[in-house]
Amino acid sequence: MEAYDDLMKRRKEYIVLGSAYSIVQWDYETYMPPKGLMLKSEQLSLLQQILHRMGTNPEIGKLLDELEKNRKKLSDVQKRNVFLVRREYDKETKIPEDLVARIGKQTPISLETWKKAKASNNWKLFEPELQKTVELSRERAEIEMQVKGIPNLYDSMLDEYERGITSSEITKEFSELRARLVPLAKKCAEASKDFDSSFLSMEIPINIQRKIAADLTTVLGYDTVSDEAGGRIDEVEHPFTTGYYDDVRITVKYHENNVASAIYAILHESGHALYEQDLNPDWKYTPVGVAASFGIHESQSRFTENMIGRSPEFLTFYLPRLKKFTNGAFPRVDDRTFIKAMNLVKPSLIRIEADEVTYSLHIIVRFEIERDLFSDKITVSELPQVWNEKYSEYLGIDVPDDTNGVLQDTHWASGYFGYFPSYALGNIYDGMFLEKMRKDMPDWLEGVAKGEIAPVINWLKDNVHVEASMYDPADLVKRVTGKSLTAKPFLDYVEAKYSKLWGF
Amino acid sequence: MEAYDDLMKRRKEYIVLGSAYSIVQWDYETYMPPKGLMLKSEQLSLLQQILHRMGTNPEIGKLLDELEKNRKKLSDVQKRNVFLVRREYDKETKIPEDLVARIGKQTPISLETWKKAKASNNWKLFEPELQKTVELSRERAEIEMQVKGIPNLYDSMLDEYERGITSSEITKEFSELRARLVPLAKKCAEASKDFDSSFLSMEIPINIQRKIAADLTTVLGYDTVSDEAGGRIDEVEHPFTTGYYDDVRITVKYHENNVASAIYAILHESGHALYEQDLNPDWKYTPVGVAASFGIHESQSRFTENMIGRSPEFLTFYLPRLKKFTNGAFPRVDDRTFIKAMNLVKPSLIRIEADEVTYSLHIIVRFEIERDLFSDKITVSELPQVWNEKYSEYLGIDVPDDTNGVLQDTHWASGYFGYFPSYALGNIYDGMFLEKMRKDMPDWLEGVAKGEIAPVINWLKDNVHVEASMYDPADLVKRVTGKSLTAKPFLDYVEAKYSKLWGF
Repeated sequence: MEAYDDLMKRRKEYIVLGSAYSIVQWDYETYMPPKGLMLKSEQLSLLQQILHRMGTNPEIGKLLDELEKNRKKLSDVQKRNVFLVRREYDKETKIPEDLVARIGKQTPISLETWKKAKASNNWKLFEPELQKTVELSRERAEIEMQVKGIPNLYDSMLDEYERGITSSEITKEFSELRARLVPLAKKCAEASKDFDSSFLSMEIPINIQRKIAADLTTVLGYDTVSDEAGGRIDEVEHPFTTGYYDDVRITVKYHENNVASAIYAILHESGHALYEQDLNPDWKYTPVGVAASFGIHESQSRFTENMIGRSPEFLTFYLPRLKKFTNGAFPRVDDRTFIKAMNLVKPSLIRIEADEVTYSLHIIVRFEIERDLFSDKITVSELPQVWNEKYSEYLGIDVPDDTNGVLQDTHWASGYFGYFPSYALGNIYDGMFLEKMRKDMPDWLEGVAKGEIAPVINWLKDNVHVEASMYDPADLVKRVTGKSLTAKPFLDYVEAKYSKLWGF
Repeated sequence: MEAYDDLMKRRKEYIVLGSAYSIVQWDYETYMPPKGLMLKSEQLSLLQQILHRMGTNPEIGKLLDELEKNRKKLSDVQKRNVFLVRREYDKETKIPEDLVARIGKQTPISLETWKKAKASNNWKLFEPELQKTVELSRERAEIEMQVKGIPNLYDSMLDEYERGITSSEITKEFSELRARLVPLAKKCAEASKDFDSSFLSMEIPINIQRKIAADLTTVLGYDTVSDEAGGRIDEVEHPFTTGYYDDVRITVKYHENNVASAIYAILHESGHALYEQDLNPDWKYTPVGVAASFGIHESQSRFTENMIGRSPEFLTFYLPRLKKFTNGAFPRVDDRTFIKAMNLVKPSLIRIEADEVTYSLHIIVRFEIERDLFSDKITVSELPQVWNEKYSEYLGIDVPDDTNGVLQDTHWASGYFGYFPSYALGNIYDGMFLEKMRKDMPDWLEGVAKGEIAPVINWLKDNVHVEASMYDPADLVKRVTGKSLTAKPFLDYVEAKYSKLWGF
């Protein structure tokens, strides 16, 4: 069908230009000389304009109309591609350019103000700008919910990151998480209160950490070093992964006194990168050939970080390599002490430093706040108070200041409302994937203990990566596990793992 | 005038997108993982297509028509902007988008094949890809010569790099160069035949060379290190400079046993970078706010490299700093020996390592080959043989293999036919600029000896950089020096310098 080929040709241009945009953005985060900021902002804003023009070209609307009339002639994959383009097209064409421009203007102001407010612990400085960002996000979501036919405002925001999910589904699973994670975290903290993990803050020169990082990617099968590498590692302030199929790059921030931070950042970002590289190669340059959702993406990064990287088996395998890289200097403890140190559970203030057990609690705080904010149960000005109350209730800690509290994350300043739940959904999906993988490969951890990671990555590839965006996340998870969304497997996994490790 | 503002708004978009293209291209040369080649080629080809569409939008034609009817209402700068857009528009509208796409796709393939062929001394591997690039270049030039009304194919190629110049003008000046440089090179080689410069190949660790490189850019006033830097240094196979005003980057290749190579690469590329950064700031984002030509560009890089960097005064100033960076290890010779070593004249195989005297002879070889290739006097398959014959005749040396012969440069793989002459034109312009600068600042070298480089850079900035593209290169040179193109000042300069240095 000619119309289909024409649509895919246009979509390929859109995707290739998007990948060029990612390179320009990557350059901004990595190597741009400081004076180049204004030019970079011109480049990024222009590329976004061109992408918007491409995506809203009326020719696309005509092609979609024609293809939808002839739906029966399309294969399942073709139908999916048409569906995905329709979804984007309707949304992009319905949002007034004026609103896009107002959001484009407000976002850098909110971000800049947030940075200053965070640096000076001054919530009142940020509040009016956040208020504007909330109102603009609401304005956009009100249009999007119409277009998508979603009756609830915050559900429509969630749908942008996790197609098809609702806040009531999330509330149900997150309540279960909370009910079992809060006591588990307490038990872990109690059991480890005398444990000395201070050896982890030994100074490891950055040059050695770079070698460890490259080795970790190689162990996972994410190639950043060979003559045929499709990946690389660069150093930034806030780590991220970016790229498309054959060119997917991760980033890291090294701290001399915290090699564990780099190890887990590398394992996490490598999980993202492997997903992007292993998407179905037949679908390259088509709409279906992208990641299924933010939650599924996060499940892949958290699988390599936690299920693999924090398993006693992986740590036992990797410990001699760490010693080799540091000429025996690190770690100067036995296997069991090392494993415990890398799996210390301790309620803390900062989400991105949280352990495997308490992490989801940080997310639940943010989810409940977003949900209540967009159903007018709380106001922007109440955010610090609500934040602090929830941290006290769920994590049992007092928030000493807003810098380490409500001001810690960049997401809200960027207008990314609905994004946070993806992180905990990633954990929930991982529990479900792990349960199924154990059935398929009961001995998987024995392989990991020998450094055989490929079978695990291949399982993820064959079950998750290769499906790309063929299914909505809930459908994908059901295909893989046979189950609907449930936090139970994840909770069973963490309870079993941590009670064994800390002996309660 | 509304039409003028509209035209400039469109042109700004074109320039900003061009700067984004440069970043994507820079990424290709610096950090792209090897597997990303095909995606990169899609990105570059698409961006070129979009630039082509922007540049050939019929609205531009209408605006140009309207502005040309109302020429009298325009200022001189506005007239120049309209002229420059007209020139590009007429050319671009005649080149089919399909040809642009084919060139955009072939170029990375030719480049990648060239890299492999050079590494393995395998001309036959490269030949078929070069053949394709030659044919595509010819196809484009045949259209361009029609549009520009230039009767000769190769003259039209030259015009792309040096607006208005002809191969007969170049032949005339290059013949003069050859006539005086060949005997000068011989005398220098004879006078220095017992001179021992082996101390130059002392091993200097790359990390120290990186520090020297950063220091050299700082000495020249090209900032690659501060919190407000608009420049940076990266490492590549074949050094180049890229960027626009506030973000201009240079590249270098370090050799452990040849610190002089890095020193002169840095001085050379910094000259390019200073030119790009010092273009008239009032003309940013407009057509006139770009470099005048490739030859003028090369005059600026060769001025910092040779007129400044190879002067006895600069070397006397810089020697103690080199010693400091190497803890006194390099160079372990007196000023006079160091100056002579850095000004050794010796016919050699590699253009980019050539000295100030023989350099132009390398260019003359390439110019004659290009001229004869595009007038069908020689074929692509004959290139290695012709190359070797000319090296024997002009430089008196035998070429042992193609890696050190016809495969050494990237230009032809990139389709840059007509580019090479710019390098020797740069030398010729420099002779003319130097003659004038000496009249304006007779004591300039006394300043250089004290490390005061700013007055020289400012002279270049006030006389050359700030004029940007306001004039064609011949007109610019005439404005600065009062003279038409002549190789004599350059020849007088090198003869005087080298006869004094080597005592003949």
